Amino acid sequence: MKLTYSGKTKDVYALEDGNYLLQFKDDVTGVDGVFDPGANTVGLTIEGAGRAGLRLTKYFFEVLKEKGIPTHYIDADIEQATMTVKPAEVFGKGLEVICRYRAVGSFLRRYGLYAIEGQPLDAFVEVTIKDDDREDPPINQDALDMLGILTKDEYIVLKELTQQIGNVVKEELAKKDIELYDIKFEFGRTGEDKQIVLIDEISGGNMRAYKDGEYIEPLVLEKMFL
Amino acid sequence: MKLTYSGKTKDVYALEDGNYLLQFKDDVTGVDGVFDPGANTVGLTIEGAGRAGLRLTKYFFEVLKEKGIPTHYIDADIEQATMTVKPAEVFGKGLEVICRYRAVGSFLRRYGLYAIEGQPLDAFVEVTIKDDDREDPPINQDALDMLGILTKDEYIVLKELTQQIGNVVKEELAKKDIELYDIKFEFGRTGEDKQIVLIDEISGGNMRAYKDGEYIEPLVLEKMFL
Repeated sequence: MKLTYSGKTKDVYALEDGNYLLQFKDDVTGVDGVFDPGANTVGLTIEGAGRAGLRLTKYFFEVLKEKGIPTHYIDADIEQATMTVKPAEVFGKGLEVICRYRAVGSFLRRYGLYAIEGQPLDAFVEVTIKDDDREDPPINQDALDMLGILTKDEYIVLKELTQQIGNVVKEELAKKDIELYDIKFEFGRTGEDKQIVLIDEISGGNMRAYKDGEYIEPLVLEKMFL
Repeated sequence: MKLTYSGKTKDVYALEDGNYLLQFKDDVTGVDGVFDPGANTVGLTIEGAGRAGLRLTKYFFEVLKEKGIPTHYIDADIEQATMTVKPAEVFGKGLEVICRYRAVGSFLRRYGLYAIEGQPLDAFVEVTIKDDDREDPPINQDALDMLGILTKDEYIVLKELTQQIGNVVKEELAKKDIELYDIKFEFGRTGEDKQIVLIDEISGGNMRAYKDGEYIEPLVLEKMFL
């Protein structure tokens, strides 16, 4: 088992059968010791954060599997905080795809001239480039195509999958009276036919969830939901 | 004749016949006394800048008229530095629509992870919100629709017009061996059928033009081209 990548919150190992093992870490992103899922730096270490993220991820990826929505997921070992996944290549050097149901966060910071805080949005999809140095800039369909990151046809698939998956997560959370405001995903291409599949994780750190108008901290979400 | 708006580089007067008069000023945008067409503040005053901008605008708007591309232009008086235009409502509180033929400026600042300086782009269109406080953020087709600024169908018209007009300007400049790198436009809705038309101006301050690889200052462009 060979370490191929060490990320902010996960290590990635290559397995002998061609699949990969994701080791969820207890490091979480944040600034000045405060947990912030949107931050680009590791802010602090919280014991159990890795397992909590994996438990939610396992739950959602298995729901998606039942619904026939493609992901890279094979299986997960909660005790070891590891997930086995199919190999996938990311788009360019990595994209984040965001699905928004209410106007908060960077959407509000950018479009505050028109949007009011918490305003409903109809599963609005936007793509940002993973680029810490340039603060993850948003990018549109034409630019993704022109820069060779994603074709226009792939963008259509990506947007549809994003809305489908966002809606699944939203409905699942609603069963516990939790409201999803926004969620970010990563996708990749897998197999010979370069099928677009969901990769990475679905956990508290990827979304903003609220209950009775109160924001739910990522680690609280896992306890409240599962 | 009533002053209805005083902008950074133009004053707008309402005429009795329902049309409007644009008074081109000698104030140009910039920072710390240096002319920068992309800046959001008035940087300095250059004698003759208003007339130079109007001469180019008159030239391009008349070429567009010949080609049947809709604009708000009626006529211009170079001596007085004024242009008479049809009434038009802007989208929301104003949008800028950019057409790019080479990767420079804010495109390169945002997408420098993938783009190299000066890389050719295929008449790439992007829309930004006019919002000085939020540094004119880019916005995509879905967000424009969801925020009630522009419908999805209007976006398609806007993008086509932008590429058509960009290509006209590019071809005109090419006649003098000048290469257009990028250009920004403003559009509005006019008449009862809310037709989308080009408004504002087309001058050195709206574009980046190069000759033999050297950037041409906006006021030099007018002299070189006309």
